[in-house]
Amino acid sequence: MQTLSVALSERAYPIHIGAGLLGHARLYAPHVNGKRVAVVTNPVVQALYLARVQAAIAEAGGQTVPLLVEEGEQAKGWATLDRVFDALLAARLGRDSLIVALGGGVIGDLAGFAAAVYQRGIPFLQVPTTLLAQVDASVGGKTAINHARGKNMIGAFHQPLAVIADVATLETLPDRELRAGIAEVIKHGLILDLAFLEWLEAHMEKLLARDPAALAHAVRRSCELKAQVVAADEREAGLRAILNFGHSFGHAIEAGVGYGEWLHGEAVATGMVMAAELSARAGTLGRPEAERAKALIARAGLPVRGPMLAVERYLELMQVDKKAKGGRVGFILLDGLGHAVQRDDLDERLVRESIAAAAQ
Amino acid sequence: MQTLSVALSERAYPIHIGAGLLGHARLYAPHVNGKRVAVVTNPVVQALYLARVQAAIAEAGGQTVPLLVEEGEQAKGWATLDRVFDALLAARLGRDSLIVALGGGVIGDLAGFAAAVYQRGIPFLQVPTTLLAQVDASVGGKTAINHARGKNMIGAFHQPLAVIADVATLETLPDRELRAGIAEVIKHGLILDLAFLEWLEAHMEKLLARDPAALAHAVRRSCELKAQVVAADEREAGLRAILNFGHSFGHAIEAGVGYGEWLHGEAVATGMVMAAELSARAGTLGRPEAERAKALIARAGLPVRGPMLAVERYLELMQVDKKAKGGRVGFILLDGLGHAVQRDDLDERLVRESIAAAAQ
Repeated sequence: MQTLSVALSERAYPIHIGAGLLGHARLYAPHVNGKRVAVVTNPVVQALYLARVQAAIAEAGGQTVPLLVEEGEQAKGWATLDRVFDALLAARLGRDSLIVALGGGVIGDLAGFAAAVYQRGIPFLQVPTTLLAQVDASVGGKTAINHARGKNMIGAFHQPLAVIADVATLETLPDRELRAGIAEVIKHGLILDLAFLEWLEAHMEKLLARDPAALAHAVRRSCELKAQVVAADEREAGLRAILNFGHSFGHAIEAGVGYGEWLHGEAVATGMVMAAELSARAGTLGRPEAERAKALIARAGLPVRGPMLAVERYLELMQVDKKAKGGRVGFILLDGLGHAVQRDDLDERLVRESIAAAAQ
Repeated sequence: MQTLSVALSERAYPIHIGAGLLGHARLYAPHVNGKRVAVVTNPVVQALYLARVQAAIAEAGGQTVPLLVEEGEQAKGWATLDRVFDALLAARLGRDSLIVALGGGVIGDLAGFAAAVYQRGIPFLQVPTTLLAQVDASVGGKTAINHARGKNMIGAFHQPLAVIADVATLETLPDRELRAGIAEVIKHGLILDLAFLEWLEAHMEKLLARDPAALAHAVRRSCELKAQVVAADEREAGLRAILNFGHSFGHAIEAGVGYGEWLHGEAVATGMVMAAELSARAGTLGRPEAERAKALIARAGLPVRGPMLAVERYLELMQVDKKAKGGRVGFILLDGLGHAVQRDDLDERLVRESIAAAAQ
């Protein structure tokens, strides 16, 4: 097991990474002893892991209340959130109780937001069971639900007490979800660390074959990189925006095709191709580097072409994205491989051309 | 105009108190210049004050988007909150926009919570137009909506940028709401300041006659007292709990008779009578002091007897109150007039007797 520390202004929290961790009582013990613990999960994850998590929490002195929500992105809405609140209140969980988010990014976002606002905030633990959640959603404290008019529009910053990232859970992950997680891993290399990007180029086949050591390294380095950024900018005032590389385009794709059609990581993958294209056209990234980024995304089995959406529809969808400032759309560009830069002054024509180039 | 400063860990914010302030552009200017500003209010307040607030914000360089919600406690629920989010998104208000809460406690709680979670948090200004909101809801950063299973169960701590408390708005306040606000003023004297309590005993008739100088003093001293407590305990870890004096009983009354039947301040008034009775029976308050507290509440025209609810129903409703810890119910008692103390070890029999004594 390896443990990273995410250093924040108020307090630091640990991210434990290793195989089999979700069954280790000692990782829960500092947080659950003597407490009532609502474990939010979905039927798929329940079947695989709930019993082991419950046993570990019981051994650590906590009393669990399982709380099942439906699978998929549709769970990230008010209707499901209200059922969570209803169950928490029906079970009479007070302010001294705890929520455990057991599942992927949807569960983490939903259960984390529930913890952020239930009785004005109770603590929570993240036990991510997908690669995407382990490398991305569990680090940084962003929680949210979707609104009919936009994804992640209602939410809060709420840091977990700890993250227990059990890489053994990745063995049961469907191929498509594994690749979606790799998209965010690649993102961390592209925006922050050329050496890690080169490591990914050298080990992509091992990652796709679920080599445990390769996965553990990818998770650890991704968490480290993201944790550095989050620690420097907890509230997304500046630097943290670079983590949105590819996401303006990606969110437009997700919304344009209908949430749940494309996985978040798939949309981000194509969004990164568009953002690399935009970087090349804006002159901050060489054409060979943009092609190199695209080639790695393609090798991960991720989509490098956008869906059948009009360029105008992209622009329309990006306007309501919450990164919009004063009506303009900000973009994160690559400033060489391993470096990102925020730009707000781009000619709209370049944006249109980049979408068109990647949509074919 | 007088200005208090509420000192918090992260930052301090000002509370401006005086007559006519809601039309003063210079009070808005530091916060709204160059911004889009959603002004959340209801039809009653709109008719009286919206135009002046919009004019002041426009003069200060802001662009207003009025956002009307229904009047009354029923507005403090998800349905209304979702309409607020929908209007904010439809108007394309981004993270750099601002919310102004123009109205009473319901508007403050609802609009404040909307600001706390819209796009993971945007800033807001409080412009309270009821006595209750000026002395209570606008200080401390508590925001919330109700859940079918309990009041204020979903919420956040979100401090306003500033509070603009215009005491001239109290001239248009219905008598019943004025008295409901006085309940919280009395509470601050009872739990924190014997001298202020004596001032209230000497000036109750002036307050009820809406003497401007008396109202301004009551608002200022209440805000000062509450601000001291909040500054010492922003997240309600300990001391701040004394502000809940009378509220466990009061929330049970509100829930028991149906939200909106009794005003919050009315329920708190009767709740304080019960809590003073409990203090006398527990031996922390003399019988004459308990009667003195009750007499002042009665002089304010506030109810000192509970509604027709069985004692068992009170206990049942108080169990789900969010102050419940590990199944027990905590109570704030008076430890002499002007001092409060938290107790968790009370014999349930005393609680039953106190409810019964005040319910007759």
